[in-house]
Amino acid sequence: MANTKPLILVTNDDGKDAKGLKALIEVVRPLGPVYAVVPETSQSGMSHAISVRKSIRVQYHKEVSTDHYHCYTVSGTPVDCIKLALNKLLPRRPDLVVSGINHGSNASVNLIYSATMGAAIEGAINRIRSIGFSLLDFDPDADFTTAALISKKLIRQVLANGYHPDLCLNVNIPAIDPKEIKGLRVCRQTRGYWVEEFEESTDDQGNRVFLLTGSYTNLEPGHPETDEWALENGYAAVVPVEVDHTRYEDVDTLKDLNFDLNK
Amino acid sequence: MANTKPLILVTNDDGKDAKGLKALIEVVRPLGPVYAVVPETSQSGMSHAISVRKSIRVQYHKEVSTDHYHCYTVSGTPVDCIKLALNKLLPRRPDLVVSGINHGSNASVNLIYSATMGAAIEGAINRIRSIGFSLLDFDPDADFTTAALISKKLIRQVLANGYHPDLCLNVNIPAIDPKEIKGLRVCRQTRGYWVEEFEESTDDQGNRVFLLTGSYTNLEPGHPETDEWALENGYAAVVPVEVDHTRYEDVDTLKDLNFDLNK
Repeated sequence: MANTKPLILVTNDDGKDAKGLKALIEVVRPLGPVYAVVPETSQSGMSHAISVRKSIRVQYHKEVSTDHYHCYTVSGTPVDCIKLALNKLLPRRPDLVVSGINHGSNASVNLIYSATMGAAIEGAINRIRSIGFSLLDFDPDADFTTAALISKKLIRQVLANGYHPDLCLNVNIPAIDPKEIKGLRVCRQTRGYWVEEFEESTDDQGNRVFLLTGSYTNLEPGHPETDEWALENGYAAVVPVEVDHTRYEDVDTLKDLNFDLNK
Repeated sequence: MANTKPLILVTNDDGKDAKGLKALIEVVRPLGPVYAVVPETSQSGMSHAISVRKSIRVQYHKEVSTDHYHCYTVSGTPVDCIKLALNKLLPRRPDLVVSGINHGSNASVNLIYSATMGAAIEGAINRIRSIGFSLLDFDPDADFTTAALISKKLIRQVLANGYHPDLCLNVNIPAIDPKEIKGLRVCRQTRGYWVEEFEESTDDQGNRVFLLTGSYTNLEPGHPETDEWALENGYAAVVPVEVDHTRYEDVDTLKDLNFDLNK
């Protein structure tokens, strides 16, 4: 390993032509061989979904690939991309999984809906260090200068220090100029939720049809240890993510649910 | 509230004709008004996915509905079902969300891929007590006698005691006879992962095509505090689930990532 450059697996939820993916690939290409394994179509909001009982098509794009950069598209979800990459497409286990750079926030509870983060969490389940990146700008032509700077610095630090093998980071970057950004801040997930509004209409058969829209409610405004606070105050927010979803305090307090069925 | 029977929202990931859904509806119908809001088609493995920029059709099934039981189908995911139910379909906030009874295990890391649990977690994000149920039997015609007994006991206990408003439980039930089951056991999520195998073939255009299969690896066999141990030893496993995915130990240990970009 000492003489081997790190092999880096890149995915995203927007497919191979997204500007954010290209920015992330430019960041990692100087570091070692890069495999981009990305969905064919947009997978926004697909969370940790996998394709069950459904064939997944894989295509290799030799028109953009080189000896050190390989690009595959997958007719499935970002988590499918990680599973296929690890089990079928890569020559060895990658040293790092990076996902993004997503357009729009994955801070607070958005982490749970995010397919960008679904892919990163799948990396961590497989005990490969993984980082998901998002820029708080929905414009497909957004400026990724600041996001690329932050990503570069963080990726180099993680490759150099390692930390533990199931490290998983959710990184959100405010849409501001590099000169305005204060730095990186390690945070916790802000408590919050979406209030759904739904645009209602009627389809040709007279059925009610809804389009999901909504607005986010921050339940902890002004808490400097949260990711939303960091973003509002000019920092990139780094939230370490846990694969174990047990709520341990409840394991202790719900002991009255330990009951015998036959009594 | 003292004179009002609890309103219960039921969903699942297999749609309105699944035997497990019918078993769960039978359990909750004696307790109060029931709204079933379920996906039109199977949503296995859809995790916490939502429909983004995609219209969702809602249909009311009056042929099976009564004054105290209302059935809707939704052309989206289980999480879409919860969002539509809470914001558009129900006359008031439900007192409980129940999801399932799913066919197959949602124990250990399966929780993360599970759409049954995605719906339950969405309930908890909205601060409504939520329980997802799974029976460890993939047979569509499985015997739900034990699962119904366990569900009934647990639902009554949660309605009576309340616990905290964002309670979320992942309940897995072994496929054994009611006389053989030892009881319920509050556990933590077992550490484990899937080793993917993928059946490979070629499509009409000569592309490589894969079908996801695999086998589960338990990283903690023999640990009596885990859900996999409980299931192997004749218990129904109850894992309390956390909406906050922050890995707090890393928030402390990764402080060296708090860096200033302009230095």
